[in-house]
Amino acid sequence: MKVEIVAVGSELLTPDFQDTNSLHLAAGLNGIGLRLNFKTTVGDDARDLRPALKAALARSRLVLCMGGLGPTEDDRTRETLARLLGRKLIFHPEIRKRIRERFRRRGWPMTASNLKQCYVIEGAEVLENPNGTAPGQWLETRRNLIALLPGPPHEILPMFEKDVLPRLTRLGRGMTVRRIIRLTGLGESAMESKIMSFYRAVPEDVSVTTLAAFGDLSIRLTYSGRGPRELADHRLEDLERELIRLLGPWIYSRSGESLEAVVGGLLRARGLTIACAESCTGGLIGHRLTEVPRSSDYFLESAVVYSNRAKTRRLGVPEALIKKHGAVSAEVARAMAMGIRRTSGADLGLAVTGVAGPGGGTPRKPVGLVYVALARKRGTAVVRSLFSGGRSQVKFQSSQKALDLVRKALNPGTAKSL
Amino acid sequence: MKVEIVAVGSELLTPDFQDTNSLHLAAGLNGIGLRLNFKTTVGDDARDLRPALKAALARSRLVLCMGGLGPTEDDRTRETLARLLGRKLIFHPEIRKRIRERFRRRGWPMTASNLKQCYVIEGAEVLENPNGTAPGQWLETRRNLIALLPGPPHEILPMFEKDVLPRLTRLGRGMTVRRIIRLTGLGESAMESKIMSFYRAVPEDVSVTTLAAFGDLSIRLTYSGRGPRELADHRLEDLERELIRLLGPWIYSRSGESLEAVVGGLLRARGLTIACAESCTGGLIGHRLTEVPRSSDYFLESAVVYSNRAKTRRLGVPEALIKKHGAVSAEVARAMAMGIRRTSGADLGLAVTGVAGPGGGTPRKPVGLVYVALARKRGTAVVRSLFSGGRSQVKFQSSQKALDLVRKALNPGTAKSL
Repeated sequence: MKVEIVAVGSELLTPDFQDTNSLHLAAGLNGIGLRLNFKTTVGDDARDLRPALKAALARSRLVLCMGGLGPTEDDRTRETLARLLGRKLIFHPEIRKRIRERFRRRGWPMTASNLKQCYVIEGAEVLENPNGTAPGQWLETRRNLIALLPGPPHEILPMFEKDVLPRLTRLGRGMTVRRIIRLTGLGESAMESKIMSFYRAVPEDVSVTTLAAFGDLSIRLTYSGRGPRELADHRLEDLERELIRLLGPWIYSRSGESLEAVVGGLLRARGLTIACAESCTGGLIGHRLTEVPRSSDYFLESAVVYSNRAKTRRLGVPEALIKKHGAVSAEVARAMAMGIRRTSGADLGLAVTGVAGPGGGTPRKPVGLVYVALARKRGTAVVRSLFSGGRSQVKFQSSQKALDLVRKALNPGTAKSL
Repeated sequence: MKVEIVAVGSELLTPDFQDTNSLHLAAGLNGIGLRLNFKTTVGDDARDLRPALKAALARSRLVLCMGGLGPTEDDRTRETLARLLGRKLIFHPEIRKRIRERFRRRGWPMTASNLKQCYVIEGAEVLENPNGTAPGQWLETRRNLIALLPGPPHEILPMFEKDVLPRLTRLGRGMTVRRIIRLTGLGESAMESKIMSFYRAVPEDVSVTTLAAFGDLSIRLTYSGRGPRELADHRLEDLERELIRLLGPWIYSRSGESLEAVVGGLLRARGLTIACAESCTGGLIGHRLTEVPRSSDYFLESAVVYSNRAKTRRLGVPEALIKKHGAVSAEVARAMAMGIRRTSGADLGLAVTGVAGPGGGTPRKPVGLVYVALARKRGTAVVRSLFSGGRSQVKFQSSQKALDLVRKALNPGTAKSL
C-alpha cells in the first residue's frame, strides 16, 4: 500500500520553516509496519494544491493531508479535495455548536470566517479536535483512504494518535522496530571506517542509517518485516552486540536516551551529587542536566563564572593562577573543578573553560580550545580538546565532552556493562 | 514559472531525517525572485520515483532533482529520468577520468559501480562536482528546465550556487524581500485577534505568515514582485509600522534577531553589566546570553542555584525566608535578584525561580508557576507567571520572560523607539 503525506502551507516552502509533523506521522506509520512512499509539500495556492492532491490520489492509496483547514481565505484543502473527488461539502451544525462553545469559553465571539470549518466532505467522518477549531475528516473512497488533518502540531498529533492510527492499524502489515544507538567522542568518518565490516553483516530486513552532528552521532537500526516481535528483537540485538564490539567506548545509549539523561541515571544509581563550574559553556551544562525531570535529586548547582572575577570570588581560583596560565588552561580548569566541588559540597565537581569564538582566539589558544576537568574525592582529571565549528557548536561539543567525562568516570566498564 | 524540488532518498521519509538542502535552495531561488511551488520527497524505489518525477515534469517548468546520483544499485534518478524523457544515457569518458583521478589521490581503486556515474542524459550539460564523484546535469527540454544534483549538502550547495543559480538568474523575475518581526509576552490567539484588521490592509504582492512557539511568536512579511527594491522596502515598512501600532509592546525585534541578541545590544549600548541567579531555568538564561558573540563584555556570571543550600550560600538568601515562603515565591525571587546583583557587582541582577515540572507541583504552587525578578540600583521588580507545557517549555518561557523583563527595563518606550 502506497502512503503519501501532503503538507499544505506556503510557509513550508520558504527557507525559514520545516514541517516536523511528518516526522511524527512517519514514526506512527512505521510503528504499525507502514512506510511512507511520498511526501508532497505545496503552498496555499489552489492552482498548485489541485495538481498536488490529484497526483497524490492517483499514486497513493493512503493520503494524509495536513494543513489548510483554518478559517482564512488561504485555507482551501477542504474545498479543493471535495471538488477533485466530485463530492459536495455538507454543513454540520454540531461543529458550529462546538466552535461557538469554544469561543464562548474564551470570551470571544465566533467569527463568520469560522463557518467554513463547519463543512465536511460528503461521506467523511468527522474527527474531533479538542485543541483547535478545525475538525479533521476521514474519508474512504473506492481508490483511496484520505485523512484531512489540521496543521498545528498540538492539534494534529493527538488527532493522528487517537483517530487515524487506530483506523490504519488494521491495514498495517508486520512491524517496524527501531533501535537508536548514540555515541560521542569520535568523528563521523572515524566511526564509518570502524564499522565498514559491520555493514556487510546487516540482514535484508534491517536498514542502517547514521546521523552525525557536531559532537553527537547516532546509528539507527530499523527492522521492517512480518515479525514476530522476537525475530525483530533478535535481529537487532545481534547487530547491537556487533556495534558494541566495534564502538563500545563511545556508545553512551542504546535506547536513544540523551547523554544528560544517561549521566543523571548514573548519578542517581550511585547516590552521588554533582555541581558544575562553567565558563565557555555559559550555563549549557546546567541547562542540559536540568532538562531531565527530578534532576534536583543530584544536581546541586552550576557556577557560570564567565568573568575572571567570578572565577576567583565564587570558586577561589587564585588570581595569580589565571594571570600565569590564562583563564583557558588546564590549571584553571582544574582549580575550577576543585573549587566548585569544595564550595558546593557535591561529590563531583565538573568544570569547563575554553575559547568559544568567533573572536578571542590566539595562535597558542585558538578558537575551539577547551579544557574540561572533573574533580572527585580521589583526584581531578583534566582533558584538553580542540573543537571545530562556530560558537554554538563549540559550546555544545564542550558540554558533550564534559558530560561524557562524568559518564566514563561513573561507568568505567562501559562496553561490558551496556 | 512553477518551480519544484524533488528530493530523492528513502532516509528522507523516515522519522529521523529531514532534508535541509531545500531550505538553502529555496533561499537561493527567493533571492532571484523565484518561489518554490512544490517540494516532493520520494524514496529510492524506482516504482515510486517514476510517478514522482512524471508529476513534477507535468506541473512544474523548473525541476530541481537532488539525490540518487550515487554509485549504488539504489541510485536511479539518472536512469528513471532518462527513460521518462525518452532520451539515451551517453557514456562520458572524461567523467571516468576525473573519478579515477579522485580515487587515485586518496589511494583507493575506482570501483566498477562508479562507472554508472559516467553516464549523462542525452543533450544535458555536465556540472562539475569538485566535492564528490557524481557530476550534476543541466537539461533544457521544450517543456522543462531540469537540474540533476547530488544529495550531500557539501556537494549540492556549491554546485547550486556556482552552476545552477547563474543559469536561473535570467529566468528570475523581480525579487523576494522578507522581514521577520519577533514578539513575546502574548499568546498566538491574542496576537491573531489584535491583527485581524491588519490582514485586510496587506497588498497582493506581500504575504504574511505567523509562527508560534511557546513564549515566542514571529510574523514574516514577504514581498514578491518586480521591484524596484525601494517599492519592496516601502511596502514592508508600511506594514511594519502598522504592526508596531498594534503590537508594539510585545515586539522585540524587526530583523529576526533573537531576544538574547537584542538584550545584549541594549546592555552594550547602555554600558551596563548583568548577572543572573537561575533556579528552574537551570542555566538556560546564561546559555542564551552567551550564544551571542562578545557577550563577555556585559555578562559577568550566572549562579545556577538549584538547591536551597546554594541559594543561601551563594546569594545570601536567608534560610528563614525560604522556609517561610518556599523557594518558589516572590520573596525568594527578589532576594535572589538582589543577592546576585550584590555579590557579582553587576548593574543588573536577574533571577528566576519556579516549578518546571512534571513533578513538584502543589495546588497552591502548580507546575508552571514562575517568579522572575530584576534588581537594579533604583529597586527590584518581581513578575509572577503561570506557564503551560512540559518541563522544557516552562524552562524556555521562563528564560524568555526574564530576558524580556530586561529588554523592557532598558527600553521603556519600546514601541516608539523600535
